[in-house]
Amino acid sequence: MMRTPNHPTARHSTTDVYAVILAGGSGTRFWPLSRETRPKQMLQIVGEDSLLQETIKRIHGFVPGKNIWIVTTEDKAQDIRFHLDALGSLAKEIGFMNEPLGRNTAPAVGLAALYLNHLSPGSIMVVLPSDHAIPDPEKFLGDLKLAVQGAEGDALVTFGIKPIRPETGYGYIKVRSKTKSRGLLKVERFFEKPDLKTAKRYLSHGGYFWNSGIFVFKTSQILTEIQTHLPSLHDALKKIEVILFEPDQGDRSSIPPSLPTGQAGAFRHPQLATLYSRLEPISIDYGVMERSHNIRMVPAKFRWSDLGSWAALDEVVEKDKAGNILKGNTINIGSENSTVFAGDRLVATIGLKDMVVVDTPDATLVTPKERVQEVRRIVETLKQGGREEHLIHKTVERPWGSYTVLEKGDRYKIKRIVLKPKAKLSLQLHRRRSEHWVVVSGVAKVTREGETYLTHTNESTYIPVNTKHRLENPEEIPLQIIEVQNGEYLEEDDIERFADDYGRH
Amino acid sequence: MMRTPNHPTARHSTTDVYAVILAGGSGTRFWPLSRETRPKQMLQIVGEDSLLQETIKRIHGFVPGKNIWIVTTEDKAQDIRFHLDALGSLAKEIGFMNEPLGRNTAPAVGLAALYLNHLSPGSIMVVLPSDHAIPDPEKFLGDLKLAVQGAEGDALVTFGIKPIRPETGYGYIKVRSKTKSRGLLKVERFFEKPDLKTAKRYLSHGGYFWNSGIFVFKTSQILTEIQTHLPSLHDALKKIEVILFEPDQGDRSSIPPSLPTGQAGAFRHPQLATLYSRLEPISIDYGVMERSHNIRMVPAKFRWSDLGSWAALDEVVEKDKAGNILKGNTINIGSENSTVFAGDRLVATIGLKDMVVVDTPDATLVTPKERVQEVRRIVETLKQGGREEHLIHKTVERPWGSYTVLEKGDRYKIKRIVLKPKAKLSLQLHRRRSEHWVVVSGVAKVTREGETYLTHTNESTYIPVNTKHRLENPEEIPLQIIEVQNGEYLEEDDIERFADDYGRH
Repeated sequence: MMRTPNHPTARHSTTDVYAVILAGGSGTRFWPLSRETRPKQMLQIVGEDSLLQETIKRIHGFVPGKNIWIVTTEDKAQDIRFHLDALGSLAKEIGFMNEPLGRNTAPAVGLAALYLNHLSPGSIMVVLPSDHAIPDPEKFLGDLKLAVQGAEGDALVTFGIKPIRPETGYGYIKVRSKTKSRGLLKVERFFEKPDLKTAKRYLSHGGYFWNSGIFVFKTSQILTEIQTHLPSLHDALKKIEVILFEPDQGDRSSIPPSLPTGQAGAFRHPQLATLYSRLEPISIDYGVMERSHNIRMVPAKFRWSDLGSWAALDEVVEKDKAGNILKGNTINIGSENSTVFAGDRLVATIGLKDMVVVDTPDATLVTPKERVQEVRRIVETLKQGGREEHLIHKTVERPWGSYTVLEKGDRYKIKRIVLKPKAKLSLQLHRRRSEHWVVVSGVAKVTREGETYLTHTNESTYIPVNTKHRLENPEEIPLQIIEVQNGEYLEEDDIERFADDYGRH
Repeated sequence: MMRTPNHPTARHSTTDVYAVILAGGSGTRFWPLSRETRPKQMLQIVGEDSLLQETIKRIHGFVPGKNIWIVTTEDKAQDIRFHLDALGSLAKEIGFMNEPLGRNTAPAVGLAALYLNHLSPGSIMVVLPSDHAIPDPEKFLGDLKLAVQGAEGDALVTFGIKPIRPETGYGYIKVRSKTKSRGLLKVERFFEKPDLKTAKRYLSHGGYFWNSGIFVFKTSQILTEIQTHLPSLHDALKKIEVILFEPDQGDRSSIPPSLPTGQAGAFRHPQLATLYSRLEPISIDYGVMERSHNIRMVPAKFRWSDLGSWAALDEVVEKDKAGNILKGNTINIGSENSTVFAGDRLVATIGLKDMVVVDTPDATLVTPKERVQEVRRIVETLKQGGREEHLIHKTVERPWGSYTVLEKGDRYKIKRIVLKPKAKLSLQLHRRRSEHWVVVSGVAKVTREGETYLTHTNESTYIPVNTKHRLENPEEIPLQIIEVQNGEYLEEDDIERFADDYGRH
């Protein structure tokens, strides 16, 4: 099944252009705002949407929704899908390619190229990290147009950001000359993250750019380059091609009907997992871009940050006159060049200099900017301690809405549960806890052992232990209930699901 | 009615010794841990008890409980009384003198001297701030013995702390010579808080001590000194004497029977309020001690801090090898000389230097130590903004136990309510809210419109709007309930009390 662009702002060329958004990262560097179940790309850090949502909206100015594909890992895909519900109908158009496990970006790009080249041979793919900030989407689209033209000429095209300081956290691109051809510069080579002395030399020398990690190439061309530079990955892709597209080992025309819908299921083949587990984890930058002689670069007109740490916000977020970024419930007296990220709780700061303070309902981070990278060590400590402040937030997003743990006590737990309009939890049962529900806004439709009844605002109901029950919002406004759980064991895994609207078991 | 010491460790002299603990302070400098309803003296900062409780326990090694008097203001007295319940039977012995309003320490000391000199003419009073830290109680009692001996000879005796750095936050005492007489040094004069240069000179010169603010003198002697140095205060005290002890304007023997019980009521005379409102607010240090030539000083053997700010903790709290004070749920990587005061929420710190971080359930403070005094400006900002983070904590102590606001939402509020064994809330009614109660531990005795019933753990009950009700813990173990309030108006003042065990109306 071939797909063609049908978006109103689509280009005039007849080549299919796909956006491949890499969304497999975990982003421990944005702890405590990021958690394992809410990685950096799902955070609303810069604009009004999450980084992933902004990435999608940005590229949607260039390709239709059905040409947008997200590559992530099996374990993250469901959370990301629910997270994208906020995009409305656009979310339903977006396809997912789920890797069995993360193996860095080269296998992800290879898999996407393989798949999209089958969908539309000779098509072009734009590879986009899902967790970068680009505050100038219009300029980005202008540059992207140049890049696609370059890719049509079989080049691997990247975007170089003009460096403004000797940054040691980015890779660099050196261009061969400063003469553009159709807006593109010929790339001499890529450089890994340099030390400070080298970075200073790059900056003073000129002709060096930051590597943005955004690439544009033909699906067929990147497969050829992978064959040249990463032959073992190419071998694996050949085998994956057989698994995905020739399940009968011969009938080439039988692309499984589930495939074009882009659902996760297509990639759940056990052999795929085995092949993947044997792949070398390597980035597309290191594996192909740094080795190929076929690279062109668009000198970017847009501002960009990879948001590699809390300190990187400085590059893309508006600051007050004293250089501070203050978000949420803050009171500040005389701080300078500091970032305070608060939520509803009050964070009061006095006289901070070059500091970062991040507050969440269950954890607060305080560190000088120059040591923000060490937040990984905090996350490591939490892991080793068997804690959960690195895993989940107090508020957990679910397909039907969200729940917030308000308090855990001895033999009880209190949650605020919010159900989206018309949403329905699974028909379920708990072996070791009972639940009291008080409706604080909206109307609840409660099913309890076959009986179904409505519980209105300011009414309560009770679900005894070992009782099949279901909670549903029959109305068009959100339903909020306070749940008080009683029992000796109150963890999330005490749940037996009998029916679920969201395919969970 | 005369009182005589009957405590096992009491001294052998026949003079009555009273402890007068000044507990009228508000302590905004320890925000966010201190709040208007929970001032510094009620905080557990250094030891296992609050500063006030520690002050009482410390002096109780020297005087019997019934000789301990707390001077505070009318508006704080009830909270302090409930706060002292933790001391058990000792709390019941302690007397209260409630000033109608705060007028600094000279009027407070004068009032106490007047009152105690009536109870026991020629008695001695030890004036103690309620919010200082003294980590060596035994040494303190040894020094106190010397001071009392000095006071018996009619001197005003103070305690001088050997300075260990050029502190500009303390007053200084200069002694006349270094020769002790019965352990006492003759004081040349007091000095106000100096500038850094002057403080350095004091330190290098020797013979200067920090003013601890702890004083010992005869009740009659301090009244004489007040007459000399603060005649207008003395005039007011003469009038107060008439109000308190000669209500019939002539019958000197008719001390009102309520007085020796030390209950707040004795000081609730409206004329007292009028007199007090006209008094000049002045400290006993400035008003008398700095002006008198009759001062002796005990060079203290005990460690001491007035805990004037978060930075002052350094003087009395044990630190780790890197000089940090870490309390509560903290993870720290490589900080130095920093103080992190956390509760149950996680506070993660990296590479802090000379910083203070204080976390409470609804507010967090981050500041360098050298700017901790500016926390007052934060409190001022909160006041001006009509907020409540400076007024109350999320957990509010009550005579019957405590409540914690777990969440406030639109038209609902959730509280965890803990009732002490056998405790009882008032018989009450709410005009604008209904309440759902879920018992999560213990047993609740519920009265609802005349009907009385038990609600057990994992059971719930409902109190409709405009319904007289009462909650009681009939058992010997604490009762915990989760209360979900529903209504348009959910503030504490929507309460009509019909009966109350704690005399509240």
